[in-house]
Amino acid sequence: MTRRVRITVPCSTANIGPGFDVLGASLSLYLTLDVSWLDGPTPAATSVPVTPYAQVTYSGEGTKDVSLDPSQNLITRTALYVLRSQGVMAFPAQLSIHAHNDIPLGRGLGSSGAAVVAGVMLGDVLGGFNMSKDRMLDYCLMVERHPDNVAAALIGGFVASYLRELSPEDTEAKSIPLSETLDHPMMGKRDKPPQPPHGIGHYIKLNWQPEIKAIAIIPKFEVATAKARAVLPTSYDRPDVVFNFQRLAVLTSALGRSPPDADLIWQAMQDKIHQPYRKHLIPGLPEVFATITPKTYPGFLGVCLSGAGPTILALAVDNFEQIAANVQQVLKNTGGIDSTWTLLELEARGAHVQDLLPQ
Amino acid sequence: MTRRVRITVPCSTANIGPGFDVLGASLSLYLTLDVSWLDGPTPAATSVPVTPYAQVTYSGEGTKDVSLDPSQNLITRTALYVLRSQGVMAFPAQLSIHAHNDIPLGRGLGSSGAAVVAGVMLGDVLGGFNMSKDRMLDYCLMVERHPDNVAAALIGGFVASYLRELSPEDTEAKSIPLSETLDHPMMGKRDKPPQPPHGIGHYIKLNWQPEIKAIAIIPKFEVATAKARAVLPTSYDRPDVVFNFQRLAVLTSALGRSPPDADLIWQAMQDKIHQPYRKHLIPGLPEVFATITPKTYPGFLGVCLSGAGPTILALAVDNFEQIAANVQQVLKNTGGIDSTWTLLELEARGAHVQDLLPQ
Repeated sequence: MTRRVRITVPCSTANIGPGFDVLGASLSLYLTLDVSWLDGPTPAATSVPVTPYAQVTYSGEGTKDVSLDPSQNLITRTALYVLRSQGVMAFPAQLSIHAHNDIPLGRGLGSSGAAVVAGVMLGDVLGGFNMSKDRMLDYCLMVERHPDNVAAALIGGFVASYLRELSPEDTEAKSIPLSETLDHPMMGKRDKPPQPPHGIGHYIKLNWQPEIKAIAIIPKFEVATAKARAVLPTSYDRPDVVFNFQRLAVLTSALGRSPPDADLIWQAMQDKIHQPYRKHLIPGLPEVFATITPKTYPGFLGVCLSGAGPTILALAVDNFEQIAANVQQVLKNTGGIDSTWTLLELEARGAHVQDLLPQ
Repeated sequence: MTRRVRITVPCSTANIGPGFDVLGASLSLYLTLDVSWLDGPTPAATSVPVTPYAQVTYSGEGTKDVSLDPSQNLITRTALYVLRSQGVMAFPAQLSIHAHNDIPLGRGLGSSGAAVVAGVMLGDVLGGFNMSKDRMLDYCLMVERHPDNVAAALIGGFVASYLRELSPEDTEAKSIPLSETLDHPMMGKRDKPPQPPHGIGHYIKLNWQPEIKAIAIIPKFEVATAKARAVLPTSYDRPDVVFNFQRLAVLTSALGRSPPDADLIWQAMQDKIHQPYRKHLIPGLPEVFATITPKTYPGFLGVCLSGAGPTILALAVDNFEQIAANVQQVLKNTGGIDSTWTLLELEARGAHVQDLLPQ
């Protein structure tokens, strides 16, 4: 019989304030997959078609950019990797996937992390593996090596995460690059790829007061993560390092305290590790950082780049429209940058699957 | 009439795990001052003796090293600074101070930070100023510029703290060196020194499960903080910086979760910023780090240098004697280092004053 499910994966923000490469939060903007397939016996390995088959349709953000070919699409490639690593060598029959994506691509809101999480969940549900989220995280981290976005999107909420140091034999598996994980030996070959080591990632959920909302101001251009990485220095002076340690240790707890202490959070959102180098990639951003403060708007808690940008994330408990309008205005007037904005909330559940009735 | 009070200040540990220059915790080993004085009108500025007078006696750790001359002793110098900055130019009549100190000197347990906190509290109580702890912290930070020890000792508990960035006019006051703060224009002069700017330090109390105890293994030699600072590099490669960010963001919350997750905490206690450079100052310490793990002792959570060392701090919920004995044995066998040890608890109250009945 035909089975139908919906997989919902939130967007995520990473590098929050001083939390470069560690802090992530999932927010209320989603990639959803509506999936249906013939729920029967899985094909034997010997009868596996070389080219995986699924009918993929897509709507929303990125429609022009995303491949619908299941051997190219990141979601289906990731799902097939999960399936094959457990000995299920092909997709089930009559697989149909409609992806609807509200997460803008290349703007620092975790769109590719969401695709990886969606792919792992898709593989899990198609194979009926019932993996724990911890185990799914291992799979995500085989594809996407920066855990901050994928851990937040998968687990939900405000999350600190990192790759743990692995034993030498596990390191080998861990360091398989993305292209090999997904293309070799999974695509066009019938070898069963190795399963990931257990516990690649460590994470902890941090507290976040629900009244703290995230205003995402999204400039109308993309910043390539590789380019945003390239502007960073390879080493840092000790005072800058300690500056971030001090803010980071405070911020991880300050966002969970009620009522939020605007002065404490504002100070603790400061960063000397990535934003000073990246802010010039976004014309007008230095002026945003310099001119809009909690004194300007009561309820305004802090502002940072989302991921590698260009999205600007402002945290606040009040005056959302005014803050967004002011940031947009400064970007436009001093940088000539057009932008949109949206008010997001923390998505505490993270990625999840719901059963749909057969049509 | 004669007034009598007891001032109790806990020891503190700083630089916990990845938390270089930010994380501190106050622990159950104390400096106490029993103070008595004639509680009458304060002397007029014109009648102030050039040399401050107080009868100081001392017992416990550091008896041979600590000056009992109130114009030399750090506690009384600090107290006099607090008094004079508020226009009280001399100690009250018949001031008698007995200090009893259980905090070993020069071992990384915050003995000098405790003296500064004790001095500020002494100045506050003698002047009857009723300062808040936040205001007392400003005074402490005028004397001791690293907030991690003084914030923990003053506030109590597990504390993340830092010096905030001040406005240019406040920076001038902030940057008065210790010698000037205390010796000029306070000592032997009758000028009123400036009060500290408000809010020099930012801090937040973090959660710490009470069942987590600190085993302090105290080698029988001192490490000068200046020497321990000198071995640190002036800059760090980005991967080492990110390594600490990731552990720090986890550790600040992991110690507050119940039950403590030994694997998570063990990983999150790792550090690449100060311990790799300092561990060779303590013969045997590299072997301690390498050989004693949660697998060796159930209930063992992590191990780090306390402050700049040489004290080694092991966190555990069980097997305290066995862990201490093992660390002592490794230090002795591989480094030839003799040590003592003591089991400490988190001191949640921090520094406090109690009234004593007149004798």
